[in-house]
Amino acid sequence: MLPQAYIDQNKDRILAELFELLRIPSISTQTEHKADITKVCDWLLDHMSKLGMDTAELLPTSGNPIVFAQKLVDPALPTILIYGHYDVQAPDPIELWQSKPFEPELRNGNIYGRGTADDKGQLFTHLKAVEYLLASRTCPVNVKFVFEGEEEIGSKHFAEGLTSNSQRLAADICIISDTHAFSPSSPAITYGLKGLVYSQVTLEVMPIDAHSGVYGGNIPNAVLELCWLLAQLKDSQTQKVLIDGFYQNVRVLSDKERAQLSKASLTEQAVLSETSVQKVIGESEFTPAERAGARPTLDVNGIWGGYIQEGEKTIIPAKASAKVSMRTVPNQTGEEIAQKFLAYINKIKKPYYNVHVEILSKTNPVLVDTSSDYFKNAEQAMIKTFGAMPEYELSGGSIRAVEVIKNVLGIDSILMGFGLPDDNLHAPNEKLSLEMFFKGIQTSIEFMTSFKSN
Amino acid sequence: MLPQAYIDQNKDRILAELFELLRIPSISTQTEHKADITKVCDWLLDHMSKLGMDTAELLPTSGNPIVFAQKLVDPALPTILIYGHYDVQAPDPIELWQSKPFEPELRNGNIYGRGTADDKGQLFTHLKAVEYLLASRTCPVNVKFVFEGEEEIGSKHFAEGLTSNSQRLAADICIISDTHAFSPSSPAITYGLKGLVYSQVTLEVMPIDAHSGVYGGNIPNAVLELCWLLAQLKDSQTQKVLIDGFYQNVRVLSDKERAQLSKASLTEQAVLSETSVQKVIGESEFTPAERAGARPTLDVNGIWGGYIQEGEKTIIPAKASAKVSMRTVPNQTGEEIAQKFLAYINKIKKPYYNVHVEILSKTNPVLVDTSSDYFKNAEQAMIKTFGAMPEYELSGGSIRAVEVIKNVLGIDSILMGFGLPDDNLHAPNEKLSLEMFFKGIQTSIEFMTSFKSN
Repeated sequence: MLPQAYIDQNKDRILAELFELLRIPSISTQTEHKADITKVCDWLLDHMSKLGMDTAELLPTSGNPIVFAQKLVDPALPTILIYGHYDVQAPDPIELWQSKPFEPELRNGNIYGRGTADDKGQLFTHLKAVEYLLASRTCPVNVKFVFEGEEEIGSKHFAEGLTSNSQRLAADICIISDTHAFSPSSPAITYGLKGLVYSQVTLEVMPIDAHSGVYGGNIPNAVLELCWLLAQLKDSQTQKVLIDGFYQNVRVLSDKERAQLSKASLTEQAVLSETSVQKVIGESEFTPAERAGARPTLDVNGIWGGYIQEGEKTIIPAKASAKVSMRTVPNQTGEEIAQKFLAYINKIKKPYYNVHVEILSKTNPVLVDTSSDYFKNAEQAMIKTFGAMPEYELSGGSIRAVEVIKNVLGIDSILMGFGLPDDNLHAPNEKLSLEMFFKGIQTSIEFMTSFKSN
Repeated sequence: MLPQAYIDQNKDRILAELFELLRIPSISTQTEHKADITKVCDWLLDHMSKLGMDTAELLPTSGNPIVFAQKLVDPALPTILIYGHYDVQAPDPIELWQSKPFEPELRNGNIYGRGTADDKGQLFTHLKAVEYLLASRTCPVNVKFVFEGEEEIGSKHFAEGLTSNSQRLAADICIISDTHAFSPSSPAITYGLKGLVYSQVTLEVMPIDAHSGVYGGNIPNAVLELCWLLAQLKDSQTQKVLIDGFYQNVRVLSDKERAQLSKASLTEQAVLSETSVQKVIGESEFTPAERAGARPTLDVNGIWGGYIQEGEKTIIPAKASAKVSMRTVPNQTGEEIAQKFLAYINKIKKPYYNVHVEILSKTNPVLVDTSSDYFKNAEQAMIKTFGAMPEYELSGGSIRAVEVIKNVLGIDSILMGFGLPDDNLHAPNEKLSLEMFFKGIQTSIEFMTSFKSN
């Protein structure tokens, strides 16, 4: 049976299975969901055993385990490592979801739910591709699945898990579907990923809150001091990050890359319509696609301090905190940017309060060599499925696994994305296009069968 | 029996009664405590009936009711209106309390618990004074109690409740104990109160949070925009409020008042030791006591936006909010400052986001005429109890009731405070000194019996 026919015939069952997987709230950012991590691992192991993998087991780490399965067809055939992650982001603000985040729903040709695009829906395309190959007894590659459970919290223990099992995980190339295409007719391969330095900043002026009537006008206010501090991280007019030396090691794009990026779908109009902001703002000498793919950025991801409930409380807050993260690009490093951030905070802070900066995670940026034969096979698989040549993209996202896989296993990753730009990753109403999901399964089948003639 | 002997003999019972009152979490700032408001009203009505008041009943308002009770001894005698408030602030941050906020505890000569000093413990002193007078059949005044339930949320419906009952509430002078003395040997009468304008500011750049990898560098960040906005409310160096015309109507102190204020206990050393800040900061040309009593101030009381839970979430926040309040002084008005605040926010906001400012409450500042005979009687009562002449103080706090009572009933209020400067009002570990509590009862008895000879 041809891939397309197989997918058509099994559509309902495949979706029912995916929905089971999506219903498990395997949120790695919140410790209260520990039991759901166990549940999703069990579900995946069980599912992969039933697919006909030789072995399906957990690779323990000091954090959440890695789900591993392999099918060894013939040592002479290429070995494909397929990476995905089973953990998801928290769903809040929950009141903005149109349907429940962990009760997937089909609407307008999309599957809505947390983890649909990032990354359960995408990793599931490869499971279904392997299911097809094993069912049709035509699997022309060895397959190893590696699904981690801490992608959303900086992949802290992924290197540890890979290192302890590096021989078993040996492969020729890694495939990752955790990015996006530009549209259902315009596929993409991501060859660059940003790094990420994520921190939590806590500012404290005194041990407990004070009455604003009694002490107002005489003592520092932790929230206002934090605002003054954070206000100095970026220039509110030029949007330049003000950390000393922040841009020092930023790689300058080649003319070819600039031309390629100029074809990217992240136009000003796309940003406006996808996010509904009133204005696109950023460094004026770069295009939106360049800012997204090739320029380092800084965002305050959250802030809290003082009285934040209903009504009034007339206190001067003792303490305030913020989450501040920076997306880095080649040739910056996580360590370099973390150090520069710490030094800058230390330089601009006032002497009369304490600031504690905790670096929650550091991921280096990645640039993949696109000249190998594996990339040609991936291109061909996409052309067969989508009828179009993939665009090569520099992404603003960060997937630490790519760096770890390169360092530990010595292989590159091909990032074939089956999401779309408006999938609401990490936000309410996350979705995955049904069309892209099924095209993902087909692309994966085409890619793996392309090795028949190698 | 003399007041002191009566208090000594009934100490344990009086404290047990007060503890009952303190155990009711009558938090007016949180609607979920509606039932506790009813509970505390019932408790007070029942208690006052048992004291021997002629009548004890609720005066309804559109908000929380006013608890009213009166004892009319003789129309020829002076009528004393005693104001207090039965509502309390929320106890958070709850983890910083050494004992439970609504389980009062005696430690080191203090009663710890929410509402001890502000204001249940203080209003209770007058209930016990009247109990003594009625028990000893020597009550030389008519007494009316008025306890409101919305002091901590701006006394929104107090004027309404007073206006509908203005004839029944007619009195010669009002006594309020909701402020503090300087020490157990240094009593105080407050003659000036600051006004308060309390607002909630919400800034929105887009409808839902966006992924910081995909859109970072291209769109505004609501939290950072709010930081930039709030950072412009005050000069971080001079500590001056930057709202246009903010200081325009501030009353200049007379030399006599400056001299009086210079004796106030709010010295730099007191601020340091009471709050444990590392440095006293404020307008350099004024003393700490002048800043607290006679200079308008601005504080951000709380801030929240974006991801504020454990770990990481790589979003660009769509929305962020803050509570911003201003303490005003004569001759500023609440309306004037609210308008100037709104105009300034509107002037400095960027065109590409929306800001919504809600004025939660407005209270005007108050200055009381201290030349009347009632003040002389209050002075004498304090001298008898404390062995010292009271200091006259300008307070940084706001009690809207004083303004309302003046406007509706046409009478002044004498603010005799039985709290102490380190009572942790509105903060964790609020307390009331046992010595001050019992001295409060005695002062109230001395004050009311002083009219025998009038």
